[in-house]
Amino acid sequence: MICNDRLMKQINFIVEIDKLKSIYRQTTLIDESRRENDAEHSWHLAMLTMLLAEYANKEDIDVLRVMKMVIIHDIVEIDAGDTFAYDYEGYKDKDEREKAAANRIFGLLPHDQGEEIHSLWREFEERETPEARFAAALDRVQPLIHNYYTKGGTWKKHEVTLEKVKKRFHCIAEGSEILAELVENIIDESVKEGYIKK
Amino acid sequence: MICNDRLMKQINFIVEIDKLKSIYRQTTLIDESRRENDAEHSWHLAMLTMLLAEYANKEDIDVLRVMKMVIIHDIVEIDAGDTFAYDYEGYKDKDEREKAAANRIFGLLPHDQGEEIHSLWREFEERETPEARFAAALDRVQPLIHNYYTKGGTWKKHEVTLEKVKKRFHCIAEGSEILAELVENIIDESVKEGYIKK
Ligand SMILES: [Ca+2]
Repeated sequence: MICNDRLMKQINFIVEIDKLKSIYRQTTLIDESRRENDAEHSWHLAMLTMLLAEYANKEDIDVLRVMKMVIIHDIVEIDAGDTFAYDYEGYKDKDEREKAAANRIFGLLPHDQGEEIHSLWREFEERETPEARFAAALDRVQPLIHNYYTKGGTWKKHEVTLEKVKKRFHCIAEGSEILAELVENIIDESVKEGYIKK
Repeated sequence: MICNDRLMKQINFIVEIDKLKSIYRQTTLIDESRRENDAEHSWHLAMLTMLLAEYANKEDIDVLRVMKMVIIHDIVEIDAGDTFAYDYEGYKDKDEREKAAANRIFGLLPHDQGEEIHSLWREFEERETPEARFAAALDRVQPLIHNYYTKGGTWKKHEVTLEKVKKRFHCIAEGSEILAELVENIIDESVKEGYIKK
């Protein structure tokens, strides 16, 4: 059907990643009707990137690179599954599972594009560039908004303590001081309302 | 909770657009387990943008602008609902419904950002710039891939004729000659397989 090898690989990849729409996270939609999947979570992060880039610590941050990172960051979960942020047991072999997934899935693409996405994914994971730090901050802010607007969400369901929440959100300031301040306010309010156990 | 008016408006918008995850399209996921929603469709388009930008008719297309267009293009459907591509009755007042939706939803944002997104949405709808034409091409290629890989999908379900399919896909060449060729091959194959009525 498609005589062009490069295009055929790209289409196969596009078909493969449709599975991300069936990887469900612990977080629910804000109306609590069901759990959120990785594809729509990634879309939401792309919107946050567009709207909140002005708060990144680095001036003139590369918005396109942040956007690319947030839309590809969860693709490895097609093989590795979603590891809940407060599942310390699951975190033990998370790296290993995700690395194998990255090799398989990004390996479906033409070599140059597979390398580009693989390296964006590594950059996101390593959190060493301002772009990766900002992307990681957004990846924490989005479920925090969901938890706050669902009156506790996964914090309440899993009885997550203030100490654990604080540890989880510690890295936000590395990407955005302003968003870190917002998050601190939301956490204070959540403790007051009983959404987070003290 | 948030003392900063600008940030408060941004967060309210981020909460409001969570509803896009509950706007279901006619197209199903490729595994046919359920219908696809607008948020995950938009994520998929962002991935197509990243992977297929090299096929845009315009060399050095502004990838960030295409990316922004595809992630925001369906937000108006939160109020206006999804209009099925072959629902000619529904198309009659589609414009009017979507314009009112754009005014309300983009109006939630700080003025400058509301204007930016509103104008990106208008650009996408008017299909006059190379970026908008390419984004519109992707918006047609993605459900075509779904229909092909689900052995007919919405074409079969709604008995869409070849003539109507061709009319729908006519504009792809304006954004990408190469993708138009791909689409032609897929349509030929789909007719041969009986996915599209002749
Ligand atoms: Ca669309």
